[in-house]
Amino acid sequence: MSYVKDLARRAKAAAAQLAVKSSADRDKALVAMAEALIGRAGEILDANERDMERAREKGTAAGLLDRLALDGSRLKGMADALVDVAGQRDPIGEVVSGHTLPNGIGLRQVRVPLGVVGIIYEARPNVTADAAGLCLKTGNAVILRGGSLAHESNLALTRVLAEAAAEAGMPEFAIQSVESTDHAAAEELMGLHGLVDVLIPRGGAGLIRSVVEHSKVPVIETGNGNCHVYVHGSADPEMALSIAVNAKTQRPSVCNAAESLLVDESVYETVLPPILVALEAAGVELVGDEKTRALGAAGVALATEEDWATEYHDLKMSVKVVAGLDEAISHINTYSTNHSESIVACDYAAAQRFVVEVDSAAVYVNASTRFTDGGEFGLGAEIGISTQKLHARGPMGLVALTSTKFVLFGDGQIRG
Amino acid sequence: MSYVKDLARRAKAAAAQLAVKSSADRDKALVAMAEALIGRAGEILDANERDMERAREKGTAAGLLDRLALDGSRLKGMADALVDVAGQRDPIGEVVSGHTLPNGIGLRQVRVPLGVVGIIYEARPNVTADAAGLCLKTGNAVILRGGSLAHESNLALTRVLAEAAAEAGMPEFAIQSVESTDHAAAEELMGLHGLVDVLIPRGGAGLIRSVVEHSKVPVIETGNGNCHVYVHGSADPEMALSIAVNAKTQRPSVCNAAESLLVDESVYETVLPPILVALEAAGVELVGDEKTRALGAAGVALATEEDWATEYHDLKMSVKVVAGLDEAISHINTYSTNHSESIVACDYAAAQRFVVEVDSAAVYVNASTRFTDGGEFGLGAEIGISTQKLHARGPMGLVALTSTKFVLFGDGQIRG
Repeated sequence: MSYVKDLARRAKAAAAQLAVKSSADRDKALVAMAEALIGRAGEILDANERDMERAREKGTAAGLLDRLALDGSRLKGMADALVDVAGQRDPIGEVVSGHTLPNGIGLRQVRVPLGVVGIIYEARPNVTADAAGLCLKTGNAVILRGGSLAHESNLALTRVLAEAAAEAGMPEFAIQSVESTDHAAAEELMGLHGLVDVLIPRGGAGLIRSVVEHSKVPVIETGNGNCHVYVHGSADPEMALSIAVNAKTQRPSVCNAAESLLVDESVYETVLPPILVALEAAGVELVGDEKTRALGAAGVALATEEDWATEYHDLKMSVKVVAGLDEAISHINTYSTNHSESIVACDYAAAQRFVVEVDSAAVYVNASTRFTDGGEFGLGAEIGISTQKLHARGPMGLVALTSTKFVLFGDGQIRG
Repeated sequence: MSYVKDLARRAKAAAAQLAVKSSADRDKALVAMAEALIGRAGEILDANERDMERAREKGTAAGLLDRLALDGSRLKGMADALVDVAGQRDPIGEVVSGHTLPNGIGLRQVRVPLGVVGIIYEARPNVTADAAGLCLKTGNAVILRGGSLAHESNLALTRVLAEAAAEAGMPEFAIQSVESTDHAAAEELMGLHGLVDVLIPRGGAGLIRSVVEHSKVPVIETGNGNCHVYVHGSADPEMALSIAVNAKTQRPSVCNAAESLLVDESVYETVLPPILVALEAAGVELVGDEKTRALGAAGVALATEEDWATEYHDLKMSVKVVAGLDEAISHINTYSTNHSESIVACDYAAAQRFVVEVDSAAVYVNASTRFTDGGEFGLGAEIGISTQKLHARGPMGLVALTSTKFVLFGDGQIRG
């Protein structure tokens, strides 16, 4: 049997054992895992230093190096997150619905773990601890497949977390990493329909597309955000400026940052110029349509068709003047990745139409798109943000890592 | 642009229009569709007769011919089902959860249509009307891709239903059939990630496996049922006999019929012989392990490894003597398709362990597996029975055809 399949079989067996552990026991293991991250910080930081050294030799960009780097304070952050997860309400065992059938059978729909969860991710080693913690909390076995850059860090983290969990009474193979960064290993993981219950890719657009296209295992698509702010003709101009600048610049590298600004033709000549000035003052590179450029802002290059579809992940924004609400909705539904969009408007009917007709996971009236986040939404810890419609949509908390099962209690009923 | 992609683009545009139709308008259209099935019965039955003729010429088996055949009474049944669906509660617009964030933003999680639903199915033309009705009820555009045997029937049904819906004010392309039974057309449909939101295959194991393996669009796996009845040592022998016979013979061709019988070693010598006699009397062909065969029932052939994994869909059953609860659970979790399983037991602890540890969509104590059905479970109409864990599990009612969206009402909030 191949190495990855063997790993998955062990995960499936571990999932069956995990499913019968009590919530209290799983929470104790999470706390033990947090303590191990601090107690065994040395071996984790040593492994991370080897990753950093190799990355520096390869001339890795400073931004990536920063995401890869671990230190005592980052480990403390990961440990605190595990303790937080331990303190959250356990969704497993919740009776979602139930009634007595006319024939007397008592039906209960009960929340259960998904089983085996695969996570395919890129540079940040904190995903290793987050995903391991969220999966253990929800009674799932996890198979982690991180990127090559953080490989030694991920293996060290997995070893420390898995050993701490096992010592606290959890099954030995509840937390495993794929010890190969070969593409073939990831491909094999994607083919394990029947052994792996769901794959969650976390990373760039290329990684996610590749998993969606190749996986035979059900996938939850996460994260890509080509988000829009639309300034309706009825908008308060100051609010429009404040929201556009915040959505673009408060943290441009994340998925809920805005990438594109749409402004109604009826007001753009007065409302748009101060927004462009403020964006440029904040260091934002602008591309726009002809009307935007004709406003005379010096550095606005002509936006291409590709710009409308691009998530810059950077201090860059595309700007377009639209005829009105219809064109704004149609533009968004054409180019958006269906993550987060906001309308700025004082008109009630426009706001209502926008939230109904824009087909995205989170739709805002008069607020920044930057709030799309499990923590901000009050869901607790977040395993990712789903941009698909099946199973989970938007920020995913613990419930997204569960399924349900129908349990029926009879006393001899047969079907007539 | 290719034909199938063009169809899907029209469906996506129709879905956007459908999403803003009121529940009352959609229900009126469902009633109009029901009336059209009766009013235009002639052209549907003519098309069906052409399918039947071709099928007879090809020497199609009697069972398949029966599933293909339409008559006035079957059309009436399809029309009645549409009227029933119109009368059900509309899940769209339901506020699933909601609260006010600390910063004052009002958050609502609202139930919305999935968008574009693709159904790939085999011989039975009633799926055409059922799926069209359930999708319209939930505000989804549907793309139907039926099997070649029922091709003319499906096209006639789609034409009649789509025209009636359009006359009742629904978008023109809300209900469409793929007018080609080429495998290439189905393959293309499976590749339309971003245009089609979900594919639901309904049919045999081969069809479902092919869709799961090839689709880039998210899939809900349905239907295959290698279901088990397990007779625990503490079982009431008469109840065990009654449930085993009912689960196997009451309607052997359907997915919730039992295929395999497990009996505890501690009681099999007394409990099993009368069950074997009753099954044989009901015309069931039996295969079994050595212990079962040694009981001396004349016609029990030796079960192979393949038998344990086979859904016979017929009056045939595999029988195995197990050491006890552990072996029963392990056997089921190894060979089952995770559809429906039942334990017959008087022992409380055994029953509790069975329902927790057996990893199937529906798990029964002391009742026949034949109850796994949307109607029996009180879910109303059913679009299929999911055997996967993502999105929906077990019988799927209207809610399985929906997603949710976060809607956030602010008054200028930006993230600090």
